[in-house]
Amino acid sequence: MSDTLILVPAGIDTYRQPVVYMREDCHICRAEGFASQTRVRIDLRDRWVIATLNVVAHDGWLAVDNAALSISAWSALGARPGDRARFSHPEPAGSASKVRAKAYGERLNERDFASIIRDTLENRLTDLDLAAFITACAGNRLDGTETVALTRSMQAAGETLDWGGRSVLDKHCVGGLPGNRTTPLVVAIVAATGQLIPKTSSRAITSPAGTADTMEVMAPVTLDERALRRVVEAEGGCVIWGGALNLSPADDHFIRIERSLDFDSTGQLVASVLSKKAAAGSTHVLIDMPVGVTAKVRSAEAAAALSALFLRVGEAIGLRLAVHLSDGTAPVGRGIGPALEAADVLAVLRRRAEAPLDLRARALDLAAHLLDLAPGGVPGEGRARAEALLDSGAAEAKFLAICEAQGGFAEPKLAPHRIELPAPCQGIISAIDNRVIARVAKLAGAPRQKVAGVLLRVQVGDRVSKGQPLYEIHAATPGEAAWAHRYAEQHADALSIAQGPR
Amino acid sequence: MSDTLILVPAGIDTYRQPVVYMREDCHICRAEGFASQTRVRIDLRDRWVIATLNVVAHDGWLAVDNAALSISAWSALGARPGDRARFSHPEPAGSASKVRAKAYGERLNERDFASIIRDTLENRLTDLDLAAFITACAGNRLDGTETVALTRSMQAAGETLDWGGRSVLDKHCVGGLPGNRTTPLVVAIVAATGQLIPKTSSRAITSPAGTADTMEVMAPVTLDERALRRVVEAEGGCVIWGGALNLSPADDHFIRIERSLDFDSTGQLVASVLSKKAAAGSTHVLIDMPVGVTAKVRSAEAAAALSALFLRVGEAIGLRLAVHLSDGTAPVGRGIGPALEAADVLAVLRRRAEAPLDLRARALDLAAHLLDLAPGGVPGEGRARAEALLDSGAAEAKFLAICEAQGGFAEPKLAPHRIELPAPCQGIISAIDNRVIARVAKLAGAPRQKVAGVLLRVQVGDRVSKGQPLYEIHAATPGEAAWAHRYAEQHADALSIAQGPR
Repeated sequence: MSDTLILVPAGIDTYRQPVVYMREDCHICRAEGFASQTRVRIDLRDRWVIATLNVVAHDGWLAVDNAALSISAWSALGARPGDRARFSHPEPAGSASKVRAKAYGERLNERDFASIIRDTLENRLTDLDLAAFITACAGNRLDGTETVALTRSMQAAGETLDWGGRSVLDKHCVGGLPGNRTTPLVVAIVAATGQLIPKTSSRAITSPAGTADTMEVMAPVTLDERALRRVVEAEGGCVIWGGALNLSPADDHFIRIERSLDFDSTGQLVASVLSKKAAAGSTHVLIDMPVGVTAKVRSAEAAAALSALFLRVGEAIGLRLAVHLSDGTAPVGRGIGPALEAADVLAVLRRRAEAPLDLRARALDLAAHLLDLAPGGVPGEGRARAEALLDSGAAEAKFLAICEAQGGFAEPKLAPHRIELPAPCQGIISAIDNRVIARVAKLAGAPRQKVAGVLLRVQVGDRVSKGQPLYEIHAATPGEAAWAHRYAEQHADALSIAQGPR
Repeated sequence: MSDTLILVPAGIDTYRQPVVYMREDCHICRAEGFASQTRVRIDLRDRWVIATLNVVAHDGWLAVDNAALSISAWSALGARPGDRARFSHPEPAGSASKVRAKAYGERLNERDFASIIRDTLENRLTDLDLAAFITACAGNRLDGTETVALTRSMQAAGETLDWGGRSVLDKHCVGGLPGNRTTPLVVAIVAATGQLIPKTSSRAITSPAGTADTMEVMAPVTLDERALRRVVEAEGGCVIWGGALNLSPADDHFIRIERSLDFDSTGQLVASVLSKKAAAGSTHVLIDMPVGVTAKVRSAEAAAALSALFLRVGEAIGLRLAVHLSDGTAPVGRGIGPALEAADVLAVLRRRAEAPLDLRARALDLAAHLLDLAPGGVPGEGRARAEALLDSGAAEAKFLAICEAQGGFAEPKLAPHRIELPAPCQGIISAIDNRVIARVAKLAGAPRQKVAGVLLRVQVGDRVSKGQPLYEIHAATPGEAAWAHRYAEQHADALSIAQGPR
C-alpha cells in the first residue's frame, strides 16, 4: 500500500476544481516528489479524479497518513470516511499541445477539439489551460470550419435526446441585453399551439441572470431526462436548466472560465448554443440577436458576421435555423436579476396594467417568427395566433401548467435591502448603458442571490425631475447593497439625461 | 468590528496564490454575500492582500469567528496569531478590460500595460486573467511598439540598479536548448578581463533548468542588492537569481503562469529579458539564440523576426545589443538538469578530459562576441583573449572566487536513482529531440529536484550497438524515476538511429 493514503473530507468548497490536501512529509509526497500545485491522480474503487495538490505543513491539522479532499473531489470519487485511495502522477494532457497550437494561431480540426474536450471533462487540463483555450479562440479566432468542428465535438461528448422523428422547436437569445427574459413567454405561447418546445436553458455566463436562473424563481429547473420527458409529453414544453442532462457537458466548464474572465468568443458562443440545441434534439431553431452599442452584439457588422456563422454552422449540423435581429439599445422590461425578471414575465402573462410593453412585444415577435418557421406554419400568420394565445390567457394557463409539471409554481420574492438612485438633474432619459446596469445588478448579488438586481423606474424617452428615482438596487444582504451602491454612485451617467428646452 | 475576523494560520501551501478559508456561516460571508472563489480584500495594520475565498463547511475544522490564511497570504500580511483583520470586497481590477481588449485583438499602450502590471503585483487580476493576458499576447500578437511599451512598464514597476555610469556587460540565452549552460563560463571569462558583468539570472520557465537553478547547485544565488554589490565590487561579476531584487517584479508572475501553460510569447519573451537587463543597469547586452527544429526558435525566419524585435526594443530603451545565432539542433554538453549541468560547467573550467567540447566552444564564442562588443574591445580579438583566460585557469579561479563571494562553493551531488535507456538497435545517432529529452528531465524532477535530469551518454554522429546506453535518467525519488522512465520508453525515438551499411 505504498501509494495509498486514508481519505478524510476537508469540508472545503473550492468550487468545481478538485483539490487534495496532503502533508508535506507524507510518504507519497516524498516518494513521488509531489509539491503544491502538482496535479495528482486519485483512484478509489472504479472511480478516479485528477486534483490539484495543496500541501499542509507537518505541524498542521492533517494526519500524516491522511489525505483530505475538497467537497468537489470527495463527491466526484464517491468517497466514504476511512476509504483508502491510490495516488499517482496523471498522464500528461495530450491536448495541451493543441491549446498551445491554437494560442500560436494554428487552426484546429474536429479531432483536436475532441481531445481538448475529453481532457476538459477528465480535468486533465487545468483552469489556466482552459483560460488559454478560451482566449486563443476569442474574438474571431475560430473560423467557420473550426466552429463546425467544435460544435460537433462538443455535442458528441454528451447525450443526444431522441424525440422519435418529431419536429422540435427551440429559441435562443444571444445575451447582453439585461431583462430580455422572453423565453418563458415564447415557450408558453408556442406550447399552447400544440408544438413541441422542450427548452433547456443555461445559467448566466457574464450577465445578471440566465433564463434558468429566472425560471428557477418560479419552478424547479433541475430535471433529469426522465422528468423532462414526462413534462414535455404532458405539456408540450418546458423551461429547464440544461446542466443536469449531460448535453454538451464541456460547455459548463468553458462557461465557468468565461464567467471568471468576463468574456467569451464568437466561435465558442455559436458552438456552445448549437451543440446544446443539436444535443437537445431540436430541428427548428430561432436565434434572437439584440444589437446595440452597449449590448453583446454592438454593431450591424458584428451582427451580420455572427448571423452568418450561426447559419453556416446550423446548416452544417442539419438544423433549420433563422436569426431574428432586434433592438438592443436599452434594457427590456423593468427588472434585471432573476426574481425581478420573473415578476416582469408574470405581469405580461397575467395581462397586468404594469406589464412591460417592450417585453410583451419582443416575446410576441419571437413566438410569431418561430411559428412561421415551424412545420405547417404560414409565413405572416404567426403573429395573430401568438397574440390571441397571450390575450386569451391560454399562454398563462400553459405556463402555470408547465411550472406545476416541473415541480410546482412559486411567486417571486422581494429583496429585503433596496436603495433608490435619484436623478442628478431634470431632463429626458436619452440612453441607458446596459453594461453599467448589468454590473450594478451583479455587484448587488445577481444571479447568485435570486432576489438581487436592479429595478428600473424609468425608460428611454421619459421626462424626469431632479431627485426622482431612476432605479432601485435590490440586494439580499446589506454588504452587497452597499457595494453595488458605491459602484452605481461612481457611474451616475448609467442613464443619460438630455437637458433640452423645457 | 462587524467586518473583522480573527486570523489563524491554515498551514496550507497554495503556492503564490493567497487563499483565505472562512466558515460558510460566518457573519461576514452572510453579510457580504461571499461564496467560494470570491476575491476578498483583507486589511491588517498597514498591509493588505487580495485572496481567493475557499468556504469551509459549518461542521468543519474552522471556528466561526476565525479566518484561516494560506502560507502566502499569512506572510504577505505579516500576520500573527490572534490578529483581527478587516474583510471587504476589493475594488474590481481596472485592467481586466485591457486584458479583454487584448484578447479581442486590440493594441495596448504603455499606460494599459502599466495598469495590467500594477493589478498583477497587487493580485487584483486572477491567475485566469493572467493566463488570458499571456495567451492574448502569444505568438506574434504583440507588435514592436507594444513590446517597447510592455518592456518600459515592466522595468518601471520595480527597482533599477545604478552602477555610477560604468559600462555593464550582460548576456542572455533564449532558452530551449537543454544543457546550454554557458552563463557561468562567460561570466568567469569576462570578469577575469576586468569588465563588469553582474549577471542576474532566472529560474527555469519551461525548461529542466534555468541558470539560477544550475548556479544554485554550486553557490548561493539568493542575494539582496547590498550583497550583490559587495560581490561585484570584489570580483567584477556574479551569477545570482534576479528574483530577490525586485527588478521587473511582474515578470515572476508572468513566468509562473507561462510555466503552467508551457508556452510564452515572442513579445513577452523580449520584454521579460530586456526589462530585467535595463533594470539591472546593463549597457551592453549579447543575446544568444540557438536555432533548430526542436529548439525554442525553430527556423531562420523565426530567428530573424525575434532578432529584429530584440534589436528594435534594445535600441528604443537605450541598450547596445547584439544577437548571436547558434546551432540549436541538439542538446549541449552531457547533463540536462541543475546538478548535471553544473558538473559539465566545472569540467570545462577545470580543463578535464571528459569536459564537453561543444559547451566549451559555445562559451568561448559568446565570451569573444561580448568582449568584442564591450567598450575598448577590438572586433576579432576577443576570441584569443577568452581562450587564454580559460586555458590558463584564470577563468576557473575567477569562478571559484565569485562562488566564495556569493556565500561558498559546493560540488554537485549525484542522484540516488538512475535508470539507463539502452539503444533499441545498432546504427549511427542522427538526431536528438530536444523537446522529448527536456520532458524526460522534467518528469524526473528537474528543476525542482537539483540532482534530477538526463545524462546523455552519446552525441549526434556516434556509432552505437544494440543495448548500449543512450542516456541515463537521474532522479531524487523512485516515483519520479519510474514516471520519467515510462515516458522515455513511450518515446524511444528521442534519439534517431540511422541504420546505414555496416
